[in-house]
Amino acid sequence: MGSEPPGPLRLLRETHEERVLTALRTQGPLTRAQLAQQTRLSRATLSSIVQTLLAKEAVTERAAAGETSAGAATRAVRGRGRPVSLVSLNPGGGLAVGMDLGHRRIQVTIANVAHEMVASDGIACAERTPWARRVQLAVGLVDELTTRREISLTSLAGLGVGIVGPVPSERAGLVRDTLTERFGVPVHVDNNTRLAALAEATWGAGAAVESVLYLRLSYGVGGGLVLGGRLLAGAGGAAGELGHISIDRDGPRCSCGGHGCLERYLSDLVDEYGGFDNLIQARDPLEPIGARIGEVLAAACNTVNPEVVVVGGELTGAGENLFRPIRTALRRYTHTQVHRTLRITQAALGYDAAARGGIALVLTQPPEEAEWRRTSCS
Amino acid sequence: MGSEPPGPLRLLRETHEERVLTALRTQGPLTRAQLAQQTRLSRATLSSIVQTLLAKEAVTERAAAGETSAGAATRAVRGRGRPVSLVSLNPGGGLAVGMDLGHRRIQVTIANVAHEMVASDGIACAERTPWARRVQLAVGLVDELTTRREISLTSLAGLGVGIVGPVPSERAGLVRDTLTERFGVPVHVDNNTRLAALAEATWGAGAAVESVLYLRLSYGVGGGLVLGGRLLAGAGGAAGELGHISIDRDGPRCSCGGHGCLERYLSDLVDEYGGFDNLIQARDPLEPIGARIGEVLAAACNTVNPEVVVVGGELTGAGENLFRPIRTALRRYTHTQVHRTLRITQAALGYDAAARGGIALVLTQPPEEAEWRRTSCS
Repeated sequence: MGSEPPGPLRLLRETHEERVLTALRTQGPLTRAQLAQQTRLSRATLSSIVQTLLAKEAVTERAAAGETSAGAATRAVRGRGRPVSLVSLNPGGGLAVGMDLGHRRIQVTIANVAHEMVASDGIACAERTPWARRVQLAVGLVDELTTRREISLTSLAGLGVGIVGPVPSERAGLVRDTLTERFGVPVHVDNNTRLAALAEATWGAGAAVESVLYLRLSYGVGGGLVLGGRLLAGAGGAAGELGHISIDRDGPRCSCGGHGCLERYLSDLVDEYGGFDNLIQARDPLEPIGARIGEVLAAACNTVNPEVVVVGGELTGAGENLFRPIRTALRRYTHTQVHRTLRITQAALGYDAAARGGIALVLTQPPEEAEWRRTSCS
Repeated sequence: MGSEPPGPLRLLRETHEERVLTALRTQGPLTRAQLAQQTRLSRATLSSIVQTLLAKEAVTERAAAGETSAGAATRAVRGRGRPVSLVSLNPGGGLAVGMDLGHRRIQVTIANVAHEMVASDGIACAERTPWARRVQLAVGLVDELTTRREISLTSLAGLGVGIVGPVPSERAGLVRDTLTERFGVPVHVDNNTRLAALAEATWGAGAAVESVLYLRLSYGVGGGLVLGGRLLAGAGGAAGELGHISIDRDGPRCSCGGHGCLERYLSDLVDEYGGFDNLIQARDPLEPIGARIGEVLAAACNTVNPEVVVVGGELTGAGENLFRPIRTALRRYTHTQVHRTLRITQAALGYDAAARGGIALVLTQPPEEAEWRRTSCS
């Protein structure tokens, strides 16, 4: 606020640099061609900006290789066979911590702004573990990881934390307040299934795709919707609650307030069979289960017409025995225009998906707007 | 491309002016406070920009009154009781033509960039009228309106055209090509129900709301989803196809390729009763119809958790006899977090909704990006 407004040339240059940095921060390593497309800058302007950023060591450039993040690798391959280089933020430019305070497991993952995962660990917890205690356990994991791996958090950009249940909520407030006080950086809290959706859309089975619908088939059934790389929250923070779409109008009341919810139907079956492993082994019930899941996905797909449906969670261990009836129902209950453009695929990320989604949440936050408020060119 | 790049000060100033102009073009008249919020400019910068734009006669300013557009009026009222003025684009700054090439009616509406509707007319057509002929009829209406009302189309910014069926399609291509050749301006074509959704979200029952789900209950049943003022198209151009969500897994095959679709169920009933008027009079069937509609809306709402559901079309003439069972089913089949924040309301716009949506489509197009490609500050 108190600083002299910088010269207009520098300001314009900065808005261009900001666009390049935001694209790299949000999407990870990109080729120059991708960067030009994303930032809508001419190749000449972009080239000059990248040169400056390389000189400032704000970004790095290296040959594209197999080990790049899924999205960038997929995109980089689209070249004409000649070697392609990837521009990324300087890995030393900052860190983001992702946490998943799940039903039965607490997971912490640390990544840098170049989209490289630098450390990850998790521990089991009981379903009844209080939320204050879960936060303590997660903080303990961060301390242990940073000590063991000699990671400094001085350049921490933010925390993204997944919790069970809807957000905003009292629980979310507690988690945010405790962690903000502990780390002194912005803390973003969202539902952990939605964060898994964001992670799949950023690094997993839905990378480099415009619209991703994610469904998680676990002890709870949830989902998330990622449009243009951003998670849709919804008016009440409940967008993507696919587990509470009804599959039986006369079905039993669910804890969510609804009736005949897919989640209730599936969890009753898991209880009946004594766990996912037995249910998957039994095979017979997978046909009707897949059909019900396909019906729910069909309703959601007729609503948003996504490019990719990603399905994750323990039940997907059933593989094609589950996916076959899902696909059949999806085709049977969607508009031709919807299923003709639709790809359905298994989730690519594992138990750390939600924690990685927390990192994506930090990295996809809109850039600080204070600059625009500060600078006046009147 | 050939012009000298302008000075950086002018460029920065232009990007700020562009933001102000885009906000006004997209959202219609706004107070200065709303403009500051929308453009993320300081009040001082904004004040200077507005002054320049007033001097250039690019914008006008006047006291807020009852006759302003729904969104702006709703927002303007939020002041502290003192008189509030609204800034809008100069009405002379350009025109947009909206067309609805509907099943049984062709509608043309002309508006200016200040969001004022300046002329409107429509004619009936037969369901079998070929598409080339419909385009001719619409062009005839434009000619007649502009001659009769002495409207010049020299400042025409674009056309937005609603058609029946999904987009992209051969039909959409024919319409776009014919009208582009005739008017020499950008022509945007979309499904006419989706355009009605956009109009409701811009000027109607969903004005000034972040997320609007629209359902149209007419001879066809369709819908649309407007998020942050932009229409969601979907990967296959079929987002919002709520009429093809299944309400009966053993139901008959629908022309869309699905089974047990809401649209098929409703159109069978309309045929059985010999039209909407009789169906509405009969009352008895409205209870189960409303329940089925509510179930479909519940599935869509659990997916996207919208702030407002707007329901339009002939069947809404049944009023509370229809809305009561819809609300009951919506509550029964949605997650608590979803229905707690949900408002359901009747559409506010009439038979010209889709044509007005065409105008909104023109006015909400992203600004021409050529400028960014042209200017290099290297």
